[in-house]
Amino acid sequence: MDTLSQSFTFSQRAQKLSGSAIREILKVTARPEIISFAGGLPTPVGFPVEEMQSAFNKVLSEQGRVALQYTTTEGYLPLRQWLADQMSAEGASVHADEILLVNGSQQALDMLGKLFIDEGSKVLVESPTYLGALQALSVYDPAFVAIPTDDQGMIPEYVSAPEAMGARLLYALPNFQNPTGLRLPLERRQDLVERCAAAHIPIVEDDPYGELRYAGERLPSLLSLGRKAGATVIRLGTFSKVLAPGLRLGYIVAPAKIIDKLVQIKQATDLHTSTLTQMAVYEAVHNGFLDKHLPKVRDIYQKQCAIMLDAMDTHFPNTAKWTRPEGGMFIWVTLPKHVNASALLQKAIENLVAFVPGEPFYAGDDVQHNTLRLSFATVPEEKIREGIAILGKLIKEA
Amino acid sequence: MDTLSQSFTFSQRAQKLSGSAIREILKVTARPEIISFAGGLPTPVGFPVEEMQSAFNKVLSEQGRVALQYTTTEGYLPLRQWLADQMSAEGASVHADEILLVNGSQQALDMLGKLFIDEGSKVLVESPTYLGALQALSVYDPAFVAIPTDDQGMIPEYVSAPEAMGARLLYALPNFQNPTGLRLPLERRQDLVERCAAAHIPIVEDDPYGELRYAGERLPSLLSLGRKAGATVIRLGTFSKVLAPGLRLGYIVAPAKIIDKLVQIKQATDLHTSTLTQMAVYEAVHNGFLDKHLPKVRDIYQKQCAIMLDAMDTHFPNTAKWTRPEGGMFIWVTLPKHVNASALLQKAIENLVAFVPGEPFYAGDDVQHNTLRLSFATVPEEKIREGIAILGKLIKEA
Repeated sequence: MDTLSQSFTFSQRAQKLSGSAIREILKVTARPEIISFAGGLPTPVGFPVEEMQSAFNKVLSEQGRVALQYTTTEGYLPLRQWLADQMSAEGASVHADEILLVNGSQQALDMLGKLFIDEGSKVLVESPTYLGALQALSVYDPAFVAIPTDDQGMIPEYVSAPEAMGARLLYALPNFQNPTGLRLPLERRQDLVERCAAAHIPIVEDDPYGELRYAGERLPSLLSLGRKAGATVIRLGTFSKVLAPGLRLGYIVAPAKIIDKLVQIKQATDLHTSTLTQMAVYEAVHNGFLDKHLPKVRDIYQKQCAIMLDAMDTHFPNTAKWTRPEGGMFIWVTLPKHVNASALLQKAIENLVAFVPGEPFYAGDDVQHNTLRLSFATVPEEKIREGIAILGKLIKEA
Repeated sequence: MDTLSQSFTFSQRAQKLSGSAIREILKVTARPEIISFAGGLPTPVGFPVEEMQSAFNKVLSEQGRVALQYTTTEGYLPLRQWLADQMSAEGASVHADEILLVNGSQQALDMLGKLFIDEGSKVLVESPTYLGALQALSVYDPAFVAIPTDDQGMIPEYVSAPEAMGARLLYALPNFQNPTGLRLPLERRQDLVERCAAAHIPIVEDDPYGELRYAGERLPSLLSLGRKAGATVIRLGTFSKVLAPGLRLGYIVAPAKIIDKLVQIKQATDLHTSTLTQMAVYEAVHNGFLDKHLPKVRDIYQKQCAIMLDAMDTHFPNTAKWTRPEGGMFIWVTLPKHVNASALLQKAIENLVAFVPGEPFYAGDDVQHNTLRLSFATVPEEKIREGIAILGKLIKEA
């Protein structure tokens, strides 16, 4: 033991922590010569740089001293009111005091872990699910219970199974899920909220991708369906995919009793989210800017997705299966049973292509080693075709 | 029990949470007719609004897509490098990979709680100490051990007492402490780091106010002394008092082994701190702006402090004692033993003056009910004199 390691002791939770598998993969694949389908970054082509510049300018020139001062933990009231109005217009009557602004939805997940999870508390998650949620919640040492999914998404019946009883939370990404790209159909949404209401299981509806819908009809949120069914729904939203992720601005919608407690947690955690950022985002969005902006962003993703699906149809063997997303940034691939996606990744990197193997997205023991996630968000058209052709060849050889 | 309260279960830690006492007082005292010495807000007169506007403008016009994209969890490298250079110039050789950027030092406290504290872990704190630190760390359920202070600040010998043995952390504010305004003398700093090195107790040096020094010489940081003495020192810094708190930007300096773990924690907590904010702050500070800006800020606080001390000399009874800060924002008052500061606050509010009673700043059982904190930072000169005269009268009557 060296001197340094003797001079401090980490908590048990910290000793269990490990780095993100994706983070490690992204480090390897950051080399510019690699065609990377691994990242989860939105395309910067869609960032409204000029509008954000105007917004920051306006706020700093007109209300600079307010924007640079501490603010309330709950967040900037006009923005909370704007969000409440948006959601109310979409069918879930929401009040500003049911909204808390946070540093992106990732912070919401951490705070929900603090609020709801004791060591060993059951948390229901889709299998597979967003690995950032598994990381955030794992810090609080829950017992994850995996809810199986099929090609329509999560199967709601499992919520009523004995293994799910007494769960503190159910975590769901109903729209264009990360990693599968699947959207939960209306009947399943209805079934899910009813079962959760009956079982007294609060639902966390994480919806970063809902506005990135480029096909199909808008479906009602779990929040709006849940309120009618008597379920407790905590909805997480973010400006990361509709404006820009570098701002780190998201929000939590929940019954006031839950928000009150989250405000105490947020206060102890970091006092509040940047006043300036909140005011600038309000300035950017409150006059209907997103109505003009989002169609452009959707067009970019729709086109990129179509190119990738077309290339997969051409180059992937028919022993592989994959999702055909109507929104979001991801395609989920199921390879033939004998192909291990981690081994495939090694080969792919040698051939200058990268993706994320499915493994880290599973919470339970049912890890499907023959799965992988592809992101089409940031790769140029020609590189998508080239990279998919290489991957297809490697899969056929595997 | 109503339906809602049956439909979810909070974690044990959340059930123990309560709101901040100061927060409640601030709500009452936010009425404009009240002369409030209760707040801990820096004066907005000192905010460099135009410079921040230029900085955000420059970053968004020249590197907009980078500034709006996700970045690394560690934070923006040029800013980390600039911070490392600053500290190295001040006598503690620091590398950029020993720095992590966070959402203000409050977030650092939460992350340190996650990293170091198990249920019942000993944490040494000055008595009294910053109540936001008590709040942040309490979430992880430590056993606080109060280190007594006298009119020079914390008394280092207590670090070697049996009650302190095996402590996971010692939390100290060596410069112009919140709430006392005291600065730890050099000999005590040296004694403290040596005792902590010998006892293998890592020191958290929280230094939000160090740059707000308007009298006396600069003293070496616990970081620089600690490195020479073989102590583990984790230094917390913030741009809240030297630029503006609404930005929510702070940083942690620690040995790389600790930073590596904190990066994992930060990633699970909220991925990273705003890319744009980090880049704009770098833009604002990297050409030596603070060297011109800080003297102006110090002048404001020096003047405000002198006015308050002068008014106290005139109006307070000589049975009360108070600190005479050489920096920072706070004066700490010890009233005659029989005067309860909370009872005095009720009277004061009736007379349209507010302060914070000392009680919430104590972690242990040695609560001194006859203490209170006054902030001179945001109150205009005439109001300081008026408010202090009223308080003096009430103390004499008590």
